Amino acid sequence: MKVVKFGGSSLASGAQVEKVYHIIASDPDRKIVVVSAPGKRYSDDIKVTDLLISCAEKYLNGEDASGLVETIISRYKSIAEELNLSNAIINKISDDLLTLLSGDKTNPASFIEAVKASGEDNNAKLVAAAFKHKGMDAHYVSPKEAGLLVSNDPGNARVLPESYQRLYALRDQPDVIVFPGFFGYNTDGEVVTFSRSGSDITGSILANGVKADIYENFTDVDAVYAVNPHIVENPKEIRELTYREMRELSYCGFSVFHDEALIPAFRASIPVNVKNTNNPEAPGTLIMSARENRNGPVVGIASDDKFSSIYVGKYMMNKEIGFGRKILLILEEFGLSFEHIPSGIDDITIIVRQNQLNEKIEQGIVERIKNDLDADEVRIEHNLALIMLVGEGMRQEVGTAARASKALAEANINIEMINQGSSETSMMFGVKETVEKKAVRALYEEFFASVRV
Amino acid sequence: MKVVKFGGSSLASGAQVEKVYHIIASDPDRKIVVVSAPGKRYSDDIKVTDLLISCAEKYLNGEDASGLVETIISRYKSIAEELNLSNAIINKISDDLLTLLSGDKTNPASFIEAVKASGEDNNAKLVAAAFKHKGMDAHYVSPKEAGLLVSNDPGNARVLPESYQRLYALRDQPDVIVFPGFFGYNTDGEVVTFSRSGSDITGSILANGVKADIYENFTDVDAVYAVNPHIVENPKEIRELTYREMRELSYCGFSVFHDEALIPAFRASIPVNVKNTNNPEAPGTLIMSARENRNGPVVGIASDDKFSSIYVGKYMMNKEIGFGRKILLILEEFGLSFEHIPSGIDDITIIVRQNQLNEKIEQGIVERIKNDLDADEVRIEHNLALIMLVGEGMRQEVGTAARASKALAEANINIEMINQGSSETSMMFGVKETVEKKAVRALYEEFFASVRV
Repeated sequence: MKVVKFGGSSLASGAQVEKVYHIIASDPDRKIVVVSAPGKRYSDDIKVTDLLISCAEKYLNGEDASGLVETIISRYKSIAEELNLSNAIINKISDDLLTLLSGDKTNPASFIEAVKASGEDNNAKLVAAAFKHKGMDAHYVSPKEAGLLVSNDPGNARVLPESYQRLYALRDQPDVIVFPGFFGYNTDGEVVTFSRSGSDITGSILANGVKADIYENFTDVDAVYAVNPHIVENPKEIRELTYREMRELSYCGFSVFHDEALIPAFRASIPVNVKNTNNPEAPGTLIMSARENRNGPVVGIASDDKFSSIYVGKYMMNKEIGFGRKILLILEEFGLSFEHIPSGIDDITIIVRQNQLNEKIEQGIVERIKNDLDADEVRIEHNLALIMLVGEGMRQEVGTAARASKALAEANINIEMINQGSSETSMMFGVKETVEKKAVRALYEEFFASVRV
Repeated sequence: MKVVKFGGSSLASGAQVEKVYHIIASDPDRKIVVVSAPGKRYSDDIKVTDLLISCAEKYLNGEDASGLVETIISRYKSIAEELNLSNAIINKISDDLLTLLSGDKTNPASFIEAVKASGEDNNAKLVAAAFKHKGMDAHYVSPKEAGLLVSNDPGNARVLPESYQRLYALRDQPDVIVFPGFFGYNTDGEVVTFSRSGSDITGSILANGVKADIYENFTDVDAVYAVNPHIVENPKEIRELTYREMRELSYCGFSVFHDEALIPAFRASIPVNVKNTNNPEAPGTLIMSARENRNGPVVGIASDDKFSSIYVGKYMMNKEIGFGRKILLILEEFGLSFEHIPSGIDDITIIVRQNQLNEKIEQGIVERIKNDLDADEVRIEHNLALIMLVGEGMRQEVGTAARASKALAEANINIEMINQGSSETSMMFGVKETVEKKAVRALYEEFFASVRV
């Protein structure tokens, strides 16, 4: 049995839904279909989810939202018309949305959650209707009915463990199931959404719940690329990735598959196949527990910017038991999560995401560390980029660090930081943001130029 | 004004004391002389301090120590005879030692401290007598009289801040002062020693106290070498080092100058000149706040073995605020101090000195981290060596990491860990102990083979 998830761009138009139908119809194992809300049809189109959020906010502020509501309905309507569906489904979607929008607003957060989630929910109803119209035995299943229970963290829900057992029952349904992504229900029966792009998470939870053989994740690219295509033109495709590799790449900005979405599949060892709705014959990228090591030590290069470093120097620091722990405690009191903590003998550097800082927090941290820990020097630097070389083969291969640092040196790039050996699947380089792209290109050239995929 | 300290080998015989006399007599600025106890005259000789420790233990156990006492006295006596000193000084040393040994033993730790310290104390008296005999205006000054107050940590005393002001008065004495190293007095007037080789510390404290222009530290090598001479034959000498560079080198086993001894000199920005008693004309090595950057980015290569790594893996670790801090807290509860904490996305490695571990502690740590922190994997590995490339110039120079890792790769050495960027003066490589020397040689070849000193 396969769980198959389609992203927003795969469902943005009637022509796209047509492709999705053929993908499902072509393989009887594709029994559970998870859908996003309709995404962009062209680059400056607006996603239905974004329209819904604006709409909910207008309703909460008592502003006129009739134009927005019409735009949203028209998105579903144009899909339905392209597919020659009867008006009944659009009338139902329209009624449901208007009922929702005019409903209870005593808890604004809950209201927004429900409106946001309606994008997926209504799209699942529409897709089920389209499948049926084409003669497939298919029906919509609600997360409530299926028992997808989640924690009560709006916009950041976590699946509750008891869900898995309930979801297992979906195996017994003979029809193709069309299931909305992105949300579940809390124990009070209210809608709670996952983080943005959370339909990937729903698919992964369902794959785990029904113990699928594979979780197919259809999007609009042929594969996960070895490097960001905005930095390197026509980069190599990655055929096989381990969960850990995918996670390390995601960390530094690979957005093709949602970070958290890997967990349920990972826990149940279900392979994830990233594929292209527009080119379903392409093999895509397979993410799994272990892969055969081929094509050299590095499988992908990721990079991300907007990191800051907090440098703390104190003579004889390494003789003070508890010094590092005390610094981390201070950061924790400011609500900061750290990314890395490289340390020397008398110095420690804490790398954090820059968006957690502002002038006031920085001042507070510097003062606390200076006063409480009697540090000689505390210094915060901004605009650091981290570049990750990712690959399970790296640890075994002598000379990967040498190749990487040589490539950077030859491109005349100063390395602010190297972190190698802490992770078994990656090696990290810190550089100034201004040279990030240049550094990524130099590393790509070194590790991929001569590799065939 | 110069404070000049002589190590044990510089004072092991009459001929050596003769050299010391000439060094002091040749420069009227050399006003304060700090002396160690007589050291080894040949490689399997025994240091007087070690004889004294054995002697004190025998006295405490009620065993016969007359042979040892005689050996100790004979060490001073042979120096006195070589220098044609009168018997008076040896009689005094002998009387003092016997009085001490037959004295109060109600606090065995204090007893051992006093006996240990007598090695330096009596040698200072002997050297002062020798200087006077040769016509120099010189006299012994006791740390008690001078006001060198220390904390009550036997074998690990720290200078009390009020000492510095008192020591300043030593400037007013017209004679050359001969001062015993290695110990001070607690506020109860009892002897407390510094850590082993602590005469370096006494010299540094005195240099700070009298605001010396320079602190000359005489030992038996021409200079600090760029690498351990037991690993590389005839290594280059280092002309100039910063305090930070010296400290980083000391950390990984450079023992020519005592680690803690740098602090008082560092705080008062007093340059430290490491020189050779047997070749006083050689310029030696100058340790100071800043140096001119010359001879490439690396000034020295140090290495040390017997490190262990504690690896902790947990999926999604980096999303848990406080995870790193909680690990460090557990280590702290086991009394462990960590050296480095390289971390990845889902993994953190804690590098510790191996001598802090044993099977029971390891089991305890693994259990605590697994249970309390719900880690996926905890693994301890032993026998890691750390190699430090040290040099203030390193950060500015593109390509140092590339040269280093290439040199290691060409020697077919797998790098277990790279830590670069946390310290501004060093770069650290972790390798298996079995390849430590090979790695050091490869790095020395890369950075020093073509460098003229």
